[in-house]
Amino acid sequence: MNDPQNPSLAAIVQRASAERVFNFSPGPATLPTEVLQQAAEEMLSWRGTGVSVMEMSHRSKEFESIHQQALDDLRELLQVPKSFRILFLQGGAIGENAIVPLNLIRRASAEKPKADFVITGTWSVKTEQETRRYGDVHIAASSKEQRYVRIPDVSAWNLSGDASYVHLCTNETIVGVEFQQVPDIGQAHGRVVVADASSHILSRPIDWDRVQVVYAGAQKNIGPAGVTIVIVREDLLGFAHPLCPSAFNWRIVNEHNSMYNTPPTYAIYIAGLVFQWLKRQGGVQGIEQRNIAKAKALYDFLDQSAFYRNEIDPSCRSRMNVPFFLADESRNDAFLAGARANGLLQLKGHKSVGGMRASIYNAMPFEGVAALIDYMREFERSAA
Amino acid sequence: MNDPQNPSLAAIVQRASAERVFNFSPGPATLPTEVLQQAAEEMLSWRGTGVSVMEMSHRSKEFESIHQQALDDLRELLQVPKSFRILFLQGGAIGENAIVPLNLIRRASAEKPKADFVITGTWSVKTEQETRRYGDVHIAASSKEQRYVRIPDVSAWNLSGDASYVHLCTNETIVGVEFQQVPDIGQAHGRVVVADASSHILSRPIDWDRVQVVYAGAQKNIGPAGVTIVIVREDLLGFAHPLCPSAFNWRIVNEHNSMYNTPPTYAIYIAGLVFQWLKRQGGVQGIEQRNIAKAKALYDFLDQSAFYRNEIDPSCRSRMNVPFFLADESRNDAFLAGARANGLLQLKGHKSVGGMRASIYNAMPFEGVAALIDYMREFERSAA
Repeated sequence: MNDPQNPSLAAIVQRASAERVFNFSPGPATLPTEVLQQAAEEMLSWRGTGVSVMEMSHRSKEFESIHQQALDDLRELLQVPKSFRILFLQGGAIGENAIVPLNLIRRASAEKPKADFVITGTWSVKTEQETRRYGDVHIAASSKEQRYVRIPDVSAWNLSGDASYVHLCTNETIVGVEFQQVPDIGQAHGRVVVADASSHILSRPIDWDRVQVVYAGAQKNIGPAGVTIVIVREDLLGFAHPLCPSAFNWRIVNEHNSMYNTPPTYAIYIAGLVFQWLKRQGGVQGIEQRNIAKAKALYDFLDQSAFYRNEIDPSCRSRMNVPFFLADESRNDAFLAGARANGLLQLKGHKSVGGMRASIYNAMPFEGVAALIDYMREFERSAA
Repeated sequence: MNDPQNPSLAAIVQRASAERVFNFSPGPATLPTEVLQQAAEEMLSWRGTGVSVMEMSHRSKEFESIHQQALDDLRELLQVPKSFRILFLQGGAIGENAIVPLNLIRRASAEKPKADFVITGTWSVKTEQETRRYGDVHIAASSKEQRYVRIPDVSAWNLSGDASYVHLCTNETIVGVEFQQVPDIGQAHGRVVVADASSHILSRPIDWDRVQVVYAGAQKNIGPAGVTIVIVREDLLGFAHPLCPSAFNWRIVNEHNSMYNTPPTYAIYIAGLVFQWLKRQGGVQGIEQRNIAKAKALYDFLDQSAFYRNEIDPSCRSRMNVPFFLADESRNDAFLAGARANGLLQLKGHKSVGGMRASIYNAMPFEGVAALIDYMREFERSAA
């Protein structure tokens, strides 16, 4: 360490780099180390400006370039058609659970606002409950009776004819089920599908013929909590309830290119760094292959074991969130303590499910999954 | 640079430190260099955890400690009484302009929701317009006719008897007026004052007998855009409109200690670092003395000059935002270009006002103001 002006900083950053662990948190979640490194490097001065991105006026040409690059990269990564608008909103998915009906539930009828829901886990339940405050909710299908282990087959969905939209949570972070594809339910003939993709956006392609609105809180695959991405087909922008706050009115936000209010600038900057990183990984196609490999390794290991088990039907297992149980649950605390000692963090399952959960988002390297499997194998062996 | 593993990072951070400029942006605004330095150091691993704050589960004990420390420090800095709650909400002040009436305008009467406004500049106008969507707005006083150069004297405020609250924007960022104190308008007898303190919070003490709700977007004196602080007297929490999104319902946010949804964790962390920095500056009392000195130096310079002028009545000049004009406006571009060349950034006035504006928030050192005055003196001399 020979930095003459500031001997401690270089040493600190170097040590920090060596301290990195495998963080299986469901969100806020692990980010690519090289993104964090770039953020650290640019923290005091972005590209020679002498100003941190955090300190930039959102109207400055520097921030406008950061914002535009993020929009362009996201559009390219997800192959978003021209007829869709990309909005960066403040808040997260729980806020958006109200903002979606405030913007869209009056589309088909302002007098009889209505939405259809397919209930596939904790998050679709939570969203459905918030939506009831803005109109009627019709449950088209639910796997609650099956404890959410299998997404209801589309042939059994009882969709209504007069709903403004059909809501799907396309990856359920807590129970660990994921739509492998959004079914064709007549979107070509005017049915609107809204997908809460918070916990798997950018992990796989999106079929834009089958979803008309996609929203996602950032803190799983995109960046820091506090920014939400809404991708919405342009013709769906004009249906907001009169009481929808202006800052959350999609039409107004779109008209101001997400600058009606001060956007969460630093979160958008980090999201942009993640998009650039994704492009270096071969884009969504490239990361999807890695996600398939990571998930397959972990599920294959679970399936061959009598010591661990995953309860989700293989047809809809999430590539992002893998809940599992120890056959002997009295060993849970020992399992978690040993994992922590091995640099494998945040593996405790959600309190409503119990057991364990490994969230293996885009930024989790294969090495992290391999290290987890090695630890699990060793824990099983030592427990025998 | 002898960092063996990563020769570039130390060099980059050191050079960045040397590049720092004086940034007079109205917001997002300059932050203390030592806060940014600490953020850079901790970016890849917070206190040996191997995890960035950005990657921490908001339910982890590490983030809970960051959150609690920020709350405790803010309460101490502003001497917030026990009867007030401090909430960290997603979004910014423009969002809050709807969220305040959604939470409070039905307090006095759910059938006849009503708020009083004192109009002192661009921001109180904007807030008043948003509020009209949620109830009646009564303009108790306005300085619009005087082009906002003077806050209307309280003796002329025509307050109504049945409003749920009186709204004040206690520092108007654009026109540059500031309440030197909130007047006594019968708060002791049940009148509720809501203060939008976005652009001067933490620059001076708050008289909690005279305000019952204070809200502030973070991006001036607190931290990154995307988090809003609401400090609200506990008995005012239960009046939300049925259509208020749960994530923005103060009662629900309070019941969950700002963890009903995933809070903007990284923005809260940076805010916490700023609070710690403020405490090292002698707290709000200490920073207020510096703010007085900075503002006095700049206004004194403007007042003795025939080349520059500030149009605001000395009784209500803002310590934070100092708009000024060149007598010869044809020199504006040359003034700005020369400033930029001298490392003095973002001095252009708001488009609705014109001229120049120097925002000299808490984090602007006296040296920045001195450098600005030196430049202005030299520009005047060279133009003679």
